[in-house]
Amino acid sequence: MRLTLEEIAERLRLAHTGPPDLPITGVAAIESAAEGDISFVTDRKHQAELEQTGASAVIVFEGCDDCRLPHITSPNPYLSFVEVVNVFHPEPRPAPGVSGASVSPEAQVASSASVGALSYIEAGASVAADCVIYPQVYVGRNVKIGPGTIIKPNVSILDDTSIGKRCIIHSGTVIGSDGYGFIDDKGRHVKIPQIGNVEIGDDVEIGACVAVDRGTFGSTVIGSGCKIDNLVHVAHNVTVGENTLLVAQVGIAGSSSIGKHCILAGQVGVAGHISIGDNVIAASKAGIPRDLKEGSVVGGIPAVPVEVWRRQVAAMLRLPNLMKELKELKKQVEVLNERLSESES
Amino acid sequence: MRLTLEEIAERLRLAHTGPPDLPITGVAAIESAAEGDISFVTDRKHQAELEQTGASAVIVFEGCDDCRLPHITSPNPYLSFVEVVNVFHPEPRPAPGVSGASVSPEAQVASSASVGALSYIEAGASVAADCVIYPQVYVGRNVKIGPGTIIKPNVSILDDTSIGKRCIIHSGTVIGSDGYGFIDDKGRHVKIPQIGNVEIGDDVEIGACVAVDRGTFGSTVIGSGCKIDNLVHVAHNVTVGENTLLVAQVGIAGSSSIGKHCILAGQVGVAGHISIGDNVIAASKAGIPRDLKEGSVVGGIPAVPVEVWRRQVAAMLRLPNLMKELKELKKQVEVLNERLSESES
Amino acid sequence: MRLTLEEIAERLRLAHTGPPDLPITGVAAIESAAEGDISFVTDRKHQAELEQTGASAVIVFEGCDDCRLPHITSPNPYLSFVEVVNVFHPEPRPAPGVSGASVSPEAQVASSASVGALSYIEAGASVAADCVIYPQVYVGRNVKIGPGTIIKPNVSILDDTSIGKRCIIHSGTVIGSDGYGFIDDKGRHVKIPQIGNVEIGDDVEIGACVAVDRGTFGSTVIGSGCKIDNLVHVAHNVTVGENTLLVAQVGIAGSSSIGKHCILAGQVGVAGHISIGDNVIAASKAGIPRDLKEGSVVGGIPAVPVEVWRRQVAAMLRLPNLMKELKELKKQVEVLNERLSESES
Repeated sequence: MRLTLEEIAERLRLAHTGPPDLPITGVAAIESAAEGDISFVTDRKHQAELEQTGASAVIVFEGCDDCRLPHITSPNPYLSFVEVVNVFHPEPRPAPGVSGASVSPEAQVASSASVGALSYIEAGASVAADCVIYPQVYVGRNVKIGPGTIIKPNVSILDDTSIGKRCIIHSGTVIGSDGYGFIDDKGRHVKIPQIGNVEIGDDVEIGACVAVDRGTFGSTVIGSGCKIDNLVHVAHNVTVGENTLLVAQVGIAGSSSIGKHCILAGQVGVAGHISIGDNVIAASKAGIPRDLKEGSVVGGIPAVPVEVWRRQVAAMLRLPNLMKELKELKKQVEVLNERLSESES
Repeated sequence: MRLTLEEIAERLRLAHTGPPDLPITGVAAIESAAEGDISFVTDRKHQAELEQTGASAVIVFEGCDDCRLPHITSPNPYLSFVEVVNVFHPEPRPAPGVSGASVSPEAQVASSASVGALSYIEAGASVAADCVIYPQVYVGRNVKIGPGTIIKPNVSILDDTSIGKRCIIHSGTVIGSDGYGFIDDKGRHVKIPQIGNVEIGDDVEIGACVAVDRGTFGSTVIGSGCKIDNLVHVAHNVTVGENTLLVAQVGIAGSSSIGKHCILAGQVGVAGHISIGDNVIAASKAGIPRDLKEGSVVGGIPAVPVEVWRRQVAAMLRLPNLMKELKELKKQVEVLNERLSESES
Repeated sequence: MRLTLEEIAERLRLAHTGPPDLPITGVAAIESAAEGDISFVTDRKHQAELEQTGASAVIVFEGCDDCRLPHITSPNPYLSFVEVVNVFHPEPRPAPGVSGASVSPEAQVASSASVGALSYIEAGASVAADCVIYPQVYVGRNVKIGPGTIIKPNVSILDDTSIGKRCIIHSGTVIGSDGYGFIDDKGRHVKIPQIGNVEIGDDVEIGACVAVDRGTFGSTVIGSGCKIDNLVHVAHNVTVGENTLLVAQVGIAGSSSIGKHCILAGQVGVAGHISIGDNVIAASKAGIPRDLKEGSVVGGIPAVPVEVWRRQVAAMLRLPNLMKELKELKKQVEVLNERLSESES
């Protein structure tokens, strides 16, 4: 593919500086860009990289005044660059149609959808327009998959799951497995039937090898705009608010609710039956045992406000020394005691 | 489906209070129950919910004396409720038979078993009566699957695995992958052949995306009645005792043994070659580096008795303050020293 | 299978002591070996086990002078034993050829390779000599799989992945899923296209349910000789050096590089954009927030040198006591103060 600098600027609805007919044939990160590539620089901190790059053109931030390369100025250079990447590297899409898949006659597949070989679609399921179901996917009974959603190979979507528009679900992931619920009958664990489902909003992306359990009753809910990384566990009846980020290997126990626009960093654990407000941030590996108010920023096991956690970590480093100091101080106090007793006597 | 209050009470072999012919058409949690639903209340703490529920009838605990709704009294209301749920929502079962699967002529599949499309069953494998193998499952050489066991889509069961009666294995899970064993040959890691297998007892439920490795020699053993949550790792030659619960994202390193009736909460890690006694409970995120006696209750990294851990956590919170206090005390002792020296001179 | 002691010694190019024609029919660990088995003892610490074993012969360490059983002496008994295990238990290999798989006419499969039923191989993919692709595997567009590599059932290998020689990839694993990269557009997370790939060296083994993301641009790289355990997360643009071990449930965030010959123990987390030198060892559950020099041995959250961590752990155990001591000391100092004031007045 080949576009001119002017053509790219027009697509971005932004101004350019430099030869309008400069040919651009690819995209690359600033440090690896070569002739023909367009790249980007987000802020003054990275401006020095403009001197060394091999890129033919760059997308720069507003106020980047001394860029000698042909450039396009953007209020959000990375976002503009992503638009250009999508032009040069459109997501490859299999042709519409069903071929080599096992599709129930009682399932509905839109004519513009693609269903890959060796996939299985159960009765009552519906696959909306422009969906791509890759090979070897399982779509259970009464599953609804919204328009434009992409399901990668070897994904399992169990009965009654509902998935919104433009979602992406990566390989190995399981949506709608049974929740982990048992009641004790004299030492024996009796299974609580898991008759709820999973409801996933629009524009949700779910990574590889993720497990989202169905509700026991009612639904496990993943809000629109959420992005879930690899190997995350979402238990039964959890609610995740819109645009929340669950980073890799996070685990959320049953019936907890996470607010909107939260960020739970890698390997965070959330206890069951708790409520986390909007805009909460948890540092990686945090263990969250109880409710957190809107806007909390926490870290540690158990999680505490991040500034407390930092002080704890700093204190921990001095702890062995502190032990010595205390011992020393005890001796001094003893000596003082003796001296005082002598002076008193 | 529609049953009367009396019919439900008879199935539960329990007494009822209220109109025998009251029609019940569904089940629901107490807070979301509507007309026609039966629900349940387990204890006095939740008794107030009886006032607000829309349920037509409830299963109540013994001693719940002022319930004005039609009700059934049970020594274990949740357990009785589960029985009713199973009546109204029987697990859907595909029809018996093999269709669209790739089954070795040297495999044995009982005529009452169901094998889904796109599943693969190797030579020497046997699938017993009333099993349900969902689509896209892999069943390796000489695998034995006991009567009534259910294997969900996209599960991989590798060679020589043995699974007992009435087990449930959820999607994405792998049973019998090679253990992680290597020996050093001058900086190069040489694979130790993993020629053992996995043996799973009866009534075991294993969640989604779980990995259970085969024994190096001998077996990795999951005892009857164990319930394993999503994304759990069980290494080679581990033994898990009967009725033990491994909650989500637990990891158990090689050759360790876990007792009966234990509970390892979410994200717990267990070191290799250690022994954990019966009835042990580990709080979530605990790291268990050494043997634990029967009945231990532990938390923390490394794990200590839970009351010690709680004191540590409390102490950690006061640690930054303690630093200040110690500093202050040092000053005071210095001043005392000077004053005493003056008074002595 | 049946070999004589002499035949085994010859295969190992080692000397034997005992009847050359002693029949050996199997291999076993020392504690479970029976007549006909050969076993091994690695060092003097385990020498006592020679007295109790039922093995017919053993492979012993150099300097094991009083072994009364027929034996073979080896500079590395376990390594020699592994060679013998491989003779008695060769990895079963399906016959070469493609049967029941869905292979693009534009894919290349070597005639000595085996592709199992229900696998799917996309256009542009190549499967080299002696590979074994088990059933239900997905091999994406332009994937290259090197000679002798084994891919177990239900693995997903996404577009453009390159895998070297003699690798083993276990079931449920996903190679080349999209990296987790988003940019903020006024509260909305916009997907950064992930147009890089994954490059895996030679002799790499990857466990079950592992997720390795493709590079955003450029590659995620797993060096030759690496061994990755189950349920590990490797994010986009991570580089893992040769012969490094990533134990179960490790997570490595985006763009970090791990050196050669490192060991990251179970459940370790590594932050993004950091650099870990060669020969680093991290204790299980460590959280590594910043660069680590070659040869570092660390533990804790956040990770500190292991000897510091041990002191912290020991100090933590004494912390509640220390609190009491400090309180006591404060009282004493107060009393001293009063006494001194009295004596001064």
